[in-house]
Amino acid sequence: MKRTREVISFQGARGAFSEEATRKLTGEHAEVIPCERFEDVFRSLAEGRATGAVVPIENTLAGSVHENYDHLLHFELPIVAETNLRIVHNLIAQPGISFSKIRRVYSHPVALNQCLDFFAKYPQLERVPFYDTAGSVKMIMEQKPQDAAAIASQVAAEIYGARILRRSIESDRRNFTRFFLLRTPQYARRHPVRTAPNTHWKTSVVFSTRNVPGSLFRALSVFALRDLDLAKIESRPLRGKPWEYLFYLDFLGRADSPNAKNALGHLGEIADFLRVLGSYPKSA
Amino acid sequence: MKRTREVISFQGARGAFSEEATRKLTGEHAEVIPCERFEDVFRSLAEGRATGAVVPIENTLAGSVHENYDHLLHFELPIVAETNLRIVHNLIAQPGISFSKIRRVYSHPVALNQCLDFFAKYPQLERVPFYDTAGSVKMIMEQKPQDAAAIASQVAAEIYGARILRRSIESDRRNFTRFFLLRTPQYARRHPVRTAPNTHWKTSVVFSTRNVPGSLFRALSVFALRDLDLAKIESRPLRGKPWEYLFYLDFLGRADSPNAKNALGHLGEIADFLRVLGSYPKSA
Repeated sequence: MKRTREVISFQGARGAFSEEATRKLTGEHAEVIPCERFEDVFRSLAEGRATGAVVPIENTLAGSVHENYDHLLHFELPIVAETNLRIVHNLIAQPGISFSKIRRVYSHPVALNQCLDFFAKYPQLERVPFYDTAGSVKMIMEQKPQDAAAIASQVAAEIYGARILRRSIESDRRNFTRFFLLRTPQYARRHPVRTAPNTHWKTSVVFSTRNVPGSLFRALSVFALRDLDLAKIESRPLRGKPWEYLFYLDFLGRADSPNAKNALGHLGEIADFLRVLGSYPKSA
Repeated sequence: MKRTREVISFQGARGAFSEEATRKLTGEHAEVIPCERFEDVFRSLAEGRATGAVVPIENTLAGSVHENYDHLLHFELPIVAETNLRIVHNLIAQPGISFSKIRRVYSHPVALNQCLDFFAKYPQLERVPFYDTAGSVKMIMEQKPQDAAAIASQVAAEIYGARILRRSIESDRRNFTRFFLLRTPQYARRHPVRTAPNTHWKTSVVFSTRNVPGSLFRALSVFALRDLDLAKIESRPLRGKPWEYLFYLDFLGRADSPNAKNALGHLGEIADFLRVLGSYPKSA
């Protein structure tokens, strides 16, 4: 079957960690649409300029990206896949520049701060904030300073033809970001995900309950009574509506299996609001 | 009663949003210890150089600061107060520089990105990344560029003697950060928080359960069966331990009330691990 050529939108410059996630999710050969804002990422898929969108949803150090949960609710673009990407920071320079020449290191301040042990070891290196990680690689390749390096992903080094001087210089190796691949509802219907028979599935839902004592307990009963395993639960206060909460919940299973259908029907009786964001194979 | 002079540690430069939170939590006159890393903030309190520490724990757009939950578990410094700070970004310049002269705006990239509507309205303004928000105010006051401004908190403008040219230029006004005030266990015992009789209290706990279906449901039953109201629940996968989770949970009430004591005793039977992080008056 001939498939449409993949065009994937993501937030950030070429070579951003989202592009690394895009490669894991859709292979090496997708065309990409780098966007300035997350909203643009969703819009480019909704308006048909992209065949898919890749967005970060949570990070093991920094928590959930609430903004993208908001866009998931607003745009109604189903999740069809997830992946967990380890955030590996690399010291990257122009080809031919040796480590001993480097005095300044450009990157996004968050990335610079995630490499403080490295900088403590090499006090001759000045940290210089830059707009984003991949953009700092692009800049040193264009402006060719002889004493500067950048911190970014391996994909950024590759895309801009730069060289990795030191690999994996982040202080904490438990830095993972979970990304979703989104499609339009039409695309998801026409191209069902094909998997091996013993694949584990996950389903993501958002629901709200009025905050009376025990309301979450009752909501979780619909999964516990049916032996459905939870993989994530998170409450988010609704601003301007004191005592009302959104809940993000992932459970193991497909929304269209009989057991999950019953649980979601039951949850619909208890929740004020319920939306299924998608079912997708669980990432390894 | 004479109290020890307050010395509060926080992460970031003078004038960071953490300093604004510090003023809300301990008044205007505390001495402050700005620290580079969150770990240093906790350490300076644990080692007696500070009388208190102020740390962000979650943001309405960016989620929970997992790193600080890790430090709360490691350092065992009790939470004695919370506050919710609205993140207000201001355009700040040297006194005497008018808005029409500004061509470059320095700040942390996250702050610059939270003001994209403002930049769309004034396309003559170039965004320049800087190490932190307050530090960008310090820099323009020291180096005195005639065409540059910074984006930071009102406290930063005040501390560095700069002037606010435009107030509240952030795109999303629902940007709040919740901060905790921490003390040493000895200090917390010697200075119990005094409150009006009808004050609502909150208690924060961390616990883990083995991930068998229904384990969280059983854990929440200890609160539901006693009509204790939840204010936050969040799961966090334990990396390297597939299928084990930490849960962050806040409930309304004091840990030393009879009802809460019973609930926590019951939770201790169900959880593999349980720690009470503190009880404190609920922020308005």
